[in-house]
Amino acid sequence: MAATIFSLEMAVRDYECDLQGVVNNAVYQNYLEHARHEYLKSIGIDFAALAAEGINLVVVRVEIDYKLSLTSGARFAVTVAAEQLSPVRIGFRQDICRLSDGKPVIKELITGTAQNRRGRPQLPQELVELFAR
Amino acid sequence: MAATIFSLEMAVRDYECDLQGVVNNAVYQNYLEHARHEYLKSIGIDFAALAAEGINLVVVRVEIDYKLSLTSGARFAVTVAAEQLSPVRIGFRQDICRLSDGKPVIKELITGTAQNRRGRPQLPQELVELFAR
Amino acid sequence: MAATIFSLEMAVRDYECDLQGVVNNAVYQNYLEHARHEYLKSIGIDFAALAAEGINLVVVRVEIDYKLSLTSGARFAVTVAAEQLSPVRIGFRQDICRLSDGKPVIKELITGTAQNRRGRPQLPQELVELFAR
Amino acid sequence: MAATIFSLEMAVRDYECDLQGVVNNAVYQNYLEHARHEYLKSIGIDFAALAAEGINLVVVRVEIDYKLSLTSGARFAVTVAAEQLSPVRIGFRQDICRLSDGKPVIKELITGTAQNRRGRPQLPQELVELFAR
Repeated sequence: MAATIFSLEMAVRDYECDLQGVVNNAVYQNYLEHARHEYLKSIGIDFAALAAEGINLVVVRVEIDYKLSLTSGARFAVTVAAEQLSPVRIGFRQDICRLSDGKPVIKELITGTAQNRRGRPQLPQELVELFAR
Repeated sequence: MAATIFSLEMAVRDYECDLQGVVNNAVYQNYLEHARHEYLKSIGIDFAALAAEGINLVVVRVEIDYKLSLTSGARFAVTVAAEQLSPVRIGFRQDICRLSDGKPVIKELITGTAQNRRGRPQLPQELVELFAR
Repeated sequence: MAATIFSLEMAVRDYECDLQGVVNNAVYQNYLEHARHEYLKSIGIDFAALAAEGINLVVVRVEIDYKLSLTSGARFAVTVAAEQLSPVRIGFRQDICRLSDGKPVIKELITGTAQNRRGRPQLPQELVELFAR
Repeated sequence: MAATIFSLEMAVRDYECDLQGVVNNAVYQNYLEHARHEYLKSIGIDFAALAAEGINLVVVRVEIDYKLSLTSGARFAVTVAAEQLSPVRIGFRQDICRLSDGKPVIKELITGTAQNRRGRPQLPQELVELFAR
């Protein structure tokens, strides 16, 4: 049931901003996914390699609170903390905070699982071992 | 406190699918936003025109349940039902269902507000009147 | 060496506009790709199905002239005309024009090929037959 | 008529890959735009700030040769070399090369201009001075 913390720094690119001049709501999910996949890679789980093998990491549910909007060029950190919710479900708590002033931008709680070729839930061994420690 | 129902049919485009061969999680927020903005337009509220006037419709929170994944070319309907949650907050219930078999794809609950130039919450008059009926 | 003409009507979605308030340059490639894939589907070639079989339709070169910028909600038509450039290369001429006034938005010339599992150029039979007529 | 060289390192994010398992063609324009805007920022020109002032940097034409496809996680460098083509037009030569083996991925030639509030071409003073040296 242990939680791990991972952090990734990124910056807003102009094409990610929409006609309101701020990062589009959907783009934060790109940021959150990228940080999550980098976290998984850091513990030996490669999202793309697993997909090529027929094991798909799948998002089941997301809850996102939008606290403030990022604008062009803003630097921010995305954190990831993982915990096992059930034998086949992992919870990720992910926050985005703006680096210029430390203010919270996004609070996310995401639930994920993994499915094998037959569509059955099956967590990668690295995740099982991570939480068995 | 009345709710209105709106529905929009769309189809998956190939570039919206990721390396798992299914629509990327973030793209559903694009679909949901587009249907929501079309709904707003149908009741006389133009997201882009408001932004140009300095009134920004803003998402405060989303909860999304992912039920199944759409693949290339799949046709689907996005529904929108709105209700006033408080003097300055609107709730939108949005579902995506696959047209080939009617199966649920996405269930979303989203909370939005609007901010004027001074960053103060201020709902467009059309929304206030909608729920005053 | 025959050319075929195909046309698809679409409309700008708000999330496709960037901080200049117009459709982002890269998004036109999404529009062009989508119309091209719909054209290919209309002659029996399914991009996604081919990819699943290990045959990848690949873009080799694009030339795009940007004539004017589309804004939120604008309706437009994308046309596709194909011609065989060599035994393994197909040229697509694609134009985007704004429906409100018929003005040209985009002129594109794109060269594509197809690669089999071994990375060798190999056109799908439907394309070969199309141009053999 | 002087040319300047700028280089930016980036890496492929999973959500940028499409159902062929490689970076989608349109996404390279995102990479190229981001590197170009970072280059402009390095010489004192801020794309977003200019847009807010009513001066829009605009792409007139792109030519892109696709040499090979990037996959999940691949690291690459985007270079930018600028030259003045006319009193109101700037040419940017941009290459993308894969860092693992130095192989060329993209060769791009892009022509841009800038428009003031009245839609007239007007280059920012920093660009005029850059090429006047």
